[in-house]
Amino acid sequence: MVMKTLAALGERGLLSIIFKRFSRQRAKGLVLGPGDDAAVLRLTPGRVLVATQDDLAEGTHFETGWADFRRLGHKLFRVNLSDLAAMGDVEPLAVIVSAGFPSSAPRSWAVDFLDGLCDDAKAFRTPVAGGNLSRSSKVFFSMTALGAALPGRVLKRSTARAGDLIAGVGPLGAAAEGLKALKAGRRTGPAIRAFYEPAPQFKAASVLARKGLATSLIDNSDGLARSVSLLAESSGLGAEVDLSRAPVRGDPHAGEDFGLVFTVPPSKWRAVKAALPGAYPVGRMTARKTSLPRGGFDHFHAS
Amino acid sequence: MVMKTLAALGERGLLSIIFKRFSRQRAKGLVLGPGDDAAVLRLTPGRVLVATQDDLAEGTHFETGWADFRRLGHKLFRVNLSDLAAMGDVEPLAVIVSAGFPSSAPRSWAVDFLDGLCDDAKAFRTPVAGGNLSRSSKVFFSMTALGAALPGRVLKRSTARAGDLIAGVGPLGAAAEGLKALKAGRRTGPAIRAFYEPAPQFKAASVLARKGLATSLIDNSDGLARSVSLLAESSGLGAEVDLSRAPVRGDPHAGEDFGLVFTVPPSKWRAVKAALPGAYPVGRMTARKTSLPRGGFDHFHAS
Repeated sequence: MVMKTLAALGERGLLSIIFKRFSRQRAKGLVLGPGDDAAVLRLTPGRVLVATQDDLAEGTHFETGWADFRRLGHKLFRVNLSDLAAMGDVEPLAVIVSAGFPSSAPRSWAVDFLDGLCDDAKAFRTPVAGGNLSRSSKVFFSMTALGAALPGRVLKRSTARAGDLIAGVGPLGAAAEGLKALKAGRRTGPAIRAFYEPAPQFKAASVLARKGLATSLIDNSDGLARSVSLLAESSGLGAEVDLSRAPVRGDPHAGEDFGLVFTVPPSKWRAVKAALPGAYPVGRMTARKTSLPRGGFDHFHAS
Repeated sequence: MVMKTLAALGERGLLSIIFKRFSRQRAKGLVLGPGDDAAVLRLTPGRVLVATQDDLAEGTHFETGWADFRRLGHKLFRVNLSDLAAMGDVEPLAVIVSAGFPSSAPRSWAVDFLDGLCDDAKAFRTPVAGGNLSRSSKVFFSMTALGAALPGRVLKRSTARAGDLIAGVGPLGAAAEGLKALKAGRRTGPAIRAFYEPAPQFKAASVLARKGLATSLIDNSDGLARSVSLLAESSGLGAEVDLSRAPVRGDPHAGEDFGLVFTVPPSKWRAVKAALPGAYPVGRMTARKTSLPRGGFDHFHAS
């Protein structure tokens, strides 16, 4: 059997597959989708635009030897939506996607990746509004997610207060276990699902923002230590971490879990638990800038 | 002299350089810039959002052996702004930028690239609202440009009419000459400037949209034959091309020129020339779907 490559399909062939898949999306706010120089979107009056970008690069986030490209489509979608959720009560509007493949890549890499995007465009009712294709000797994917929010329902990193509890929702360490399993040759199981299909925490974030429960919010993308450090540093505070009551599985500081980490005044903890039974405490914000453990993922260090 | 690498600087070191550069940008519409999970932007009421993404990949768009990373920052900015301009009377709002570098990359690649982004953020009054950093064995850059437009002043590709003249503004073939010169070891000159610093045609696009002169519009990114084909195909038409009155220099179909190609009813050609003295004719839209030359850049073909 001869493997069909992207060189044989050509950029135009791939574009025509893309336009077929994404030309009939109907979504509130989508005025003009793929096929022009840019997408055109309409925001509900009174909303602000929330915009973020995140990438997956061969050799760093995945290896072509074991990657399932359809599930990489899911992962790219979800890590971006997770960043929208990390801004509070945000409604996703659309995504824009760039992909770089070598000419020698099997056609299936691209088509599977598109299938993954289609799956999640439906699952999250978030259209693929546009994108870009490039030739690249290593595979890379870049996505921009666009969302809308009422200005008063945006939760930043920099607004935590001393004495606030630090809490989390979502897995701690599961994605790293999944990556380990993939490298060891396994292809299924809940850890692998945690690696490929993290769940954007829109509902939890929306509750925290709408009910005025959280004082600050971040998504847990580079490990818990790093997320807590970022909240503390952004807010000009220190933090104490205690994971004895957190559902840790594997290394909670290894990154890619994509839950939420947030701060909440102690008086509101009961209300948080009532609204989000899965929330767990991970520490406390302090006025004194403590030296936090330097854990967490750093792209350029071989940590 | 020891070359400083990104591994020595670390992701956090580079992020702190980035935040220093981009934390004090003041721009209409920018509510929250770099340093959180996502950027927050405000659109003027009544405007629609125009959003596009374009990339530069090592080995395809540049080689690290000859690339000037500051000028790659300019190029990335401009190829994205060119896509906004190609939608009509669009005002740029902000850009979001992703970069992937190997850990062994000289620190100067990243810092020079940031300098280039700073230059153009100022030149085009368009803030860098956020982004992402990844480790990647090959360098890649991805940018999303966001703009705002009145809905009635958006010009699409699909609205050309049979009998319309096809016209262009901007260079034809200069960027390809520049690439040739760079590969031959030259580092300065107008062709190299055309390669690195294409001029987004905001003013021309705005005139065409505001005065109701053009019926369709595209940016000339993959060569003239390809741009004309795309206008014709999107509009369900054919096209005849005649470059005898166009300012061709080098190969007009090689791509990366980033001028505009647009269609205009013959009765409005005089008004176009009065408003845009640099505009030149390149052909005519026909009702019959002619088979156009299959020229132009295709990422996955070794054309």
